[in-house]
Amino acid sequence: MVVAAQSLEELCINSIRFLAIDAVEKAKSGHPGLPMGAAPMSFVLWDKFLRVNPKNPSWFNRDRFVLSAGHGSMLQYALMYLAGFDSVSLDDIKQFRQWGSKTPGHPENFETPGIEVTTGPLGQGICNGVGLAMSEAHLAATFNKPDATIVDHYTYVILGDGCNMEGVSGEACSLAGHLGLGKLIALYDDNHISIDGDTAVSFTEDVGKRFEAYGWHVQEVPNGDTDLDAIQKAIEVAKSVTDKPSLLKVRTTIGYGSPNKANTGGVHGAALGGDEVEATRKNLGWDYEPFVVPEDALSHWRKAVDRGAKYESEWNEAFAAYKSKYASEAAEFERRVSGKLPDGWEKSLPQYAPGDKALATRQTSEKTLNAIAQSLPELIGGSADLTHSNLTLLKGYGDFQKGSYDGRNLRFGVREHGMGAICNGIALDKSGLIPYCATFLVFADYMRAAIRLSALSQAGVIYIMTHDSIALGEDGPTHQPVETIASLRAIPNLLVFRPADGNETSGAYKIAVERRHQPSLLAMTRQALPQLDGSSIDAVARGAYILSGSDDLPDIILVGTGSEVSLCVSAAEKLRAEGHKVRVVSMPCWELFEEQDEAYKNTIFPKADQKRLVVEAASSFGWHKYMGNDGAMISIERFGVSAPGGVAMEKFGYTVDNVVAEAKKVMGK
Amino acid sequence: MVVAAQSLEELCINSIRFLAIDAVEKAKSGHPGLPMGAAPMSFVLWDKFLRVNPKNPSWFNRDRFVLSAGHGSMLQYALMYLAGFDSVSLDDIKQFRQWGSKTPGHPENFETPGIEVTTGPLGQGICNGVGLAMSEAHLAATFNKPDATIVDHYTYVILGDGCNMEGVSGEACSLAGHLGLGKLIALYDDNHISIDGDTAVSFTEDVGKRFEAYGWHVQEVPNGDTDLDAIQKAIEVAKSVTDKPSLLKVRTTIGYGSPNKANTGGVHGAALGGDEVEATRKNLGWDYEPFVVPEDALSHWRKAVDRGAKYESEWNEAFAAYKSKYASEAAEFERRVSGKLPDGWEKSLPQYAPGDKALATRQTSEKTLNAIAQSLPELIGGSADLTHSNLTLLKGYGDFQKGSYDGRNLRFGVREHGMGAICNGIALDKSGLIPYCATFLVFADYMRAAIRLSALSQAGVIYIMTHDSIALGEDGPTHQPVETIASLRAIPNLLVFRPADGNETSGAYKIAVERRHQPSLLAMTRQALPQLDGSSIDAVARGAYILSGSDDLPDIILVGTGSEVSLCVSAAEKLRAEGHKVRVVSMPCWELFEEQDEAYKNTIFPKADQKRLVVEAASSFGWHKYMGNDGAMISIERFGVSAPGGVAMEKFGYTVDNVVAEAKKVMGK
Repeated sequence: MVVAAQSLEELCINSIRFLAIDAVEKAKSGHPGLPMGAAPMSFVLWDKFLRVNPKNPSWFNRDRFVLSAGHGSMLQYALMYLAGFDSVSLDDIKQFRQWGSKTPGHPENFETPGIEVTTGPLGQGICNGVGLAMSEAHLAATFNKPDATIVDHYTYVILGDGCNMEGVSGEACSLAGHLGLGKLIALYDDNHISIDGDTAVSFTEDVGKRFEAYGWHVQEVPNGDTDLDAIQKAIEVAKSVTDKPSLLKVRTTIGYGSPNKANTGGVHGAALGGDEVEATRKNLGWDYEPFVVPEDALSHWRKAVDRGAKYESEWNEAFAAYKSKYASEAAEFERRVSGKLPDGWEKSLPQYAPGDKALATRQTSEKTLNAIAQSLPELIGGSADLTHSNLTLLKGYGDFQKGSYDGRNLRFGVREHGMGAICNGIALDKSGLIPYCATFLVFADYMRAAIRLSALSQAGVIYIMTHDSIALGEDGPTHQPVETIASLRAIPNLLVFRPADGNETSGAYKIAVERRHQPSLLAMTRQALPQLDGSSIDAVARGAYILSGSDDLPDIILVGTGSEVSLCVSAAEKLRAEGHKVRVVSMPCWELFEEQDEAYKNTIFPKADQKRLVVEAASSFGWHKYMGNDGAMISIERFGVSAPGGVAMEKFGYTVDNVVAEAKKVMGK
Repeated sequence: MVVAAQSLEELCINSIRFLAIDAVEKAKSGHPGLPMGAAPMSFVLWDKFLRVNPKNPSWFNRDRFVLSAGHGSMLQYALMYLAGFDSVSLDDIKQFRQWGSKTPGHPENFETPGIEVTTGPLGQGICNGVGLAMSEAHLAATFNKPDATIVDHYTYVILGDGCNMEGVSGEACSLAGHLGLGKLIALYDDNHISIDGDTAVSFTEDVGKRFEAYGWHVQEVPNGDTDLDAIQKAIEVAKSVTDKPSLLKVRTTIGYGSPNKANTGGVHGAALGGDEVEATRKNLGWDYEPFVVPEDALSHWRKAVDRGAKYESEWNEAFAAYKSKYASEAAEFERRVSGKLPDGWEKSLPQYAPGDKALATRQTSEKTLNAIAQSLPELIGGSADLTHSNLTLLKGYGDFQKGSYDGRNLRFGVREHGMGAICNGIALDKSGLIPYCATFLVFADYMRAAIRLSALSQAGVIYIMTHDSIALGEDGPTHQPVETIASLRAIPNLLVFRPADGNETSGAYKIAVERRHQPSLLAMTRQALPQLDGSSIDAVARGAYILSGSDDLPDIILVGTGSEVSLCVSAAEKLRAEGHKVRVVSMPCWELFEEQDEAYKNTIFPKADQKRLVVEAASSFGWHKYMGNDGAMISIERFGVSAPGGVAMEKFGYTVDNVVAEAKKVMGK
């Protein structure tokens, strides 16, 4: 493995390796093995192919690069520093994995400009990459003209064995093959080592054949350690295959260059240690001090800066020409990429009056989606094979399919987890698209890792989750959310809505669309709900508001969400008829309520008034925060049951009479 | 599609179809399409192959049957009724999907004897099947002798397009191929229709080729609607392939027999409707009233009862012969299948004294696992490629691999979701195995759907989740649980433990092993913790207990879990030195505390004393229940950060001084 005299290419490649080795060594924490093994393919990709502008990481038509194997983050930081990104300086690399640094343990888009998505949890990045490639395909189909191309870039992903073992990657890659995303190119760092050692202990499938089964174009590079020409040729071929995504199975040696730890699990996730660092320096003929990049290498790498500036200026010219011919399209394109919503879009939100027809909130959701789809051309999404249950079809806007990438209805198949991760990619593409996705609420569990990453990576995905309680009925406990909504409210930075009627549905969508750096999840009913007196679109922004009984201190406050608000309204009427002073609070979104000031909070839940009855067809988990010292809740503390929805609701106590009875108990305390 | 004169086989098959049609029609809810299309393959499988004893559904050596496409539950209920299971009567079928019935919307093992596992959420059943087949392989390797076989049965799974789109099934099937589970035979109901209609909109991969890539033996049956011989031959071939699991891709017509709805999405998940039921009766020449099974068909079907009795009595003879030769092995086998734990097993649980070495709870977990592994030969499990981080290796017990199925260390690869679902299968096999599985706590999100099903289906899986807080350090927010533990506590019937030291670790395992009908999840630290004065194995059973300061009403109660209990202990010492009366409560398991009577609860948290400070390195979500009206919590209400663990803990306020300061604030309220 000894390298005698180092060519410029070797110097460039070893610069990656030693930045990673030295940073991990200094931090005494990290994953040197992947950067050492994937350095050659990364060098070829970045040096010969990747079209980015290091000085403007947000340049629209950049190629997207995703390190799906995010634990190898030092690979990406080294590449970015070497290529001249301002966001990763040498000092930042020396601060690898330290408090407040720009170089956290796994790549985080919200910390480090130039990082597209947040990877680390295995399998997510490749799915994000599918989303990025779908964005490109959609925008190209929407904006490009026969005589003018302004959207034309590739998505490159480096993924490892772990990514390929995770089911989520299988979901997204199957869909990518179906869609024929020719500009998605994945480099599989096939090093046969995972944390437990040789992948032979658990992972002996034929990955290439599996990807062929998905409809991908698959190539193998038998020697990814030193055969740079083969890597280059394979990427060229991949680019020439325009009707299929490409997988390059690049055989590498993890920890390449380390005489005693290469090709072992030991180099995967721990610093080499001082002696082995020295041995590796010797073995690779690297005479430089820690964190020193030889001048020849750095000056070659930094050519990326001029190249990038040229790429962008060429594109700017192309865009100017486009603009002169297609002024309105260009204006629309610029608006979208700027992230600005169309003026007055919110006027398209449906409004309802108390006399209007009772509708399930999945139906008011359908109306809202179809109404705002007209004023928000950037709205794109779909369901995990429950289109006609979730009611998420944008009528008249076609399917996004091979040959019709301008379609706005995404057909995800029964692939919830992949769906969420793909939408994260679309949301973080910085092209202005607003992705939504849908399934039954209970199956949030299938995609929870992706939802968490939406919240963490500030991806404004809209999750439309219907069939939101035991009231869905006969499908039974496997399909009935009970603890689901609590588990979602627990996620930081996620807005969880449970609208009570049509106005609240519109109000929830208003916020969800406006918050482009925060995901929203809308829990919708299967069953019809009345349009309430006192509800409004604007009130939702407060998170909780008084529907009736705002004066003085009431004898009791009935707090409901979603389908149980109308129960509270009916119970309040009965209680008032008996002379009780009753307040009804609708609380569609905890997180927005928490954003309010103390004065507002106190108008809703006065500290002096602790008699409260919460009514929500779900677990009480978390509700004690709002229940009051003398409060109670009609809740469900077990799994649901297979029975008609109305029967289930009645048996679990969700009736007007029971709300009245429980309210009296609270008042009598 | 018209059938002129009906053969006995056709009568038997149509009996399935019309039981399903009539039950769905009566319930006005359900999925008739799958039972109608999968009736022929199901008939062949049950009539010619499946070795079960309808009168004793728990007979150990039965073949396992799993309907992974659980929405087609009426298929399974029809099969069970026709074959003579007492658990599904004709009346039960008439009560399909009604409150309190034995025939819920999706198959539930805890409702209906003879149903092995709870399916419905797509993809889970096939993974459970992998677990069932792994159980068989392990027990066969453990107990069979060259001259005496007592474990020898097949696992048959029917799965659909939805199951095959879900990533979880890919994870488990890749592992099944790796393991070469020859006695796993999956029949893929390849009907090209899912809820959104033709699978061509999203699912065009080559499923057979994918399974070949996994290492499965794949056959196609081009006409699964009427070619019963081909089905039979394919199953025969599948049985003859002993070194690979088998997939039979059986091309069927969803809703076969319905003149207007067959082969459409409309027949997937809705009743046919009266007119179409009539048309289907006419089309299939079915002159019988609803719920009437022709006598010829029923008497043929019911031959399964005698066959089953014979299978069991033959096995009983074989077992008697085994017992006469191998008395101790037979006794051990009987003990295991009875579900009885070995007498005194709990004496092997490690105990610790206050002076003992500080250890991470992942280390005390490792000690416990390896200690009890010796007294509990039924303990089997492993990690999702984090063996040396989770510390879950059973030393000296070998790997479960092709050729060494007697090994007790399962190598799951990076497949958390598949791992959980496989363990559900192992736990529900009724063979006495106690499965555990492991990953980082934050990746509970990846397997949450499986964890929920453990809880719902009463599967005693032990989840070992290490790196349980921001204290894991540098890996950063993608890897740091914050809301995770709250989200898990929200799941009904799941015991969530966060042990504070070695004794509490042993105590958590004691409960986890004993509760064979309830899953347990143990959250373990990466970092070392001192062995506490006052902790004990037995105390854990109470869920929360007083570690110090039991007398009178204290000035403040410090409530900690896991790694923060020792912080509370140190803070209490400081506060006491200043003259405050301080109680320290360790609360390793909320759910066990909730099982205690009110009197006990009041000794821990007296109603008269509401000054409490909770210290847990996690979100406060849910804690208000215990916090007290004048209480507070040192919590984390955002995502974590990449930094050394000690730094992160300090910055987030997890220091003795900050606990003291916050306690004083609470006391000053």
